[in-house]
Amino acid sequence: MDEVIADAVTEHLFRYNRDHGEQLTKADLEGRWLWDIVSSDRHAILEAYLRSEDFFAVLDVMPEAQRVIAHLQDRYDIFIASAAMEVPTSFTAKYEWLGKHFPFIPPSRIVFCGDKGILDADFLIDDNPRQLRRFRGEGILYSAPHNVAITEFRRVADWLHVERMFLG
Amino acid sequence: MDEVIADAVTEHLFRYNRDHGEQLTKADLEGRWLWDIVSSDRHAILEAYLRSEDFFAVLDVMPEAQRVIAHLQDRYDIFIASAAMEVPTSFTAKYEWLGKHFPFIPPSRIVFCGDKGILDADFLIDDNPRQLRRFRGEGILYSAPHNVAITEFRRVADWLHVERMFLG
Repeated sequence: MDEVIADAVTEHLFRYNRDHGEQLTKADLEGRWLWDIVSSDRHAILEAYLRSEDFFAVLDVMPEAQRVIAHLQDRYDIFIASAAMEVPTSFTAKYEWLGKHFPFIPPSRIVFCGDKGILDADFLIDDNPRQLRRFRGEGILYSAPHNVAITEFRRVADWLHVERMFLG
Repeated sequence: MDEVIADAVTEHLFRYNRDHGEQLTKADLEGRWLWDIVSSDRHAILEAYLRSEDFFAVLDVMPEAQRVIAHLQDRYDIFIASAAMEVPTSFTAKYEWLGKHFPFIPPSRIVFCGDKGILDADFLIDDNPRQLRRFRGEGILYSAPHNVAITEFRRVADWLHVERMFLG
């Protein structure tokens, strides 16, 4: 979900900048996670934003994600798999966000997990190379600032790119 | 989780009997789900019990489940997969129940899903034949009153039986 269909980084940066008078941007995150550029004494603050119940509800959908995923459903069995176990307070907000923005994905096709190596699928589109390495199908890296240096997977820049790759 | 590591039926029967002056028992459920023996005008009541936030928290652990699963972890990669998407209000209660009774299972090995056909594992131990039929590994049927007539899977009667099957 985060950084693939839900724009979590924009909201995370907004909250951190607002509360700490900083001007961090996505460009500052090239090759790094937010945790890498914020001093360690503020990591608990970064975690708290993600854990707050209202964080996920306000996230924007990544451009074209709804249209392309709806279109992919014509030819593929689509599941949404989120590493939600990392932030258990997000379960309900994530479920409601999906119901609001992706009402055409049935709940039976939603997976909240930790280690995505447990997924039996042909493809996994994910921004996190750690998850793609565990996955036994083909991992497709969805571009995000933190993963610019990763070269071991087929990469997609955005959902229009996914559309061309899977729907020709 | 339900009927395999968590005794949900006992609590479900208790609440229904208490509120409706009935004396339904597990024996009444042979070959049937509770929904099959309660009149359809009361199905919303049955659903409401499962959806109530305090339902899962009080469930007993199935006998020997903790000891055997801890032992299985010595030789197997153990994941707990629950069809939690059917009852989204149960996410937090189920997560907390696991943390309380199975603290040795890391959150990264917990999966809340709907269709268990998405799981990539060698074995799935489940009471629900519908889930086992979708699963691509070997399905093992965990005995429950509702599944007594099912013959298409290897069956285990309880966790002692699982222990003999997988740990010899």
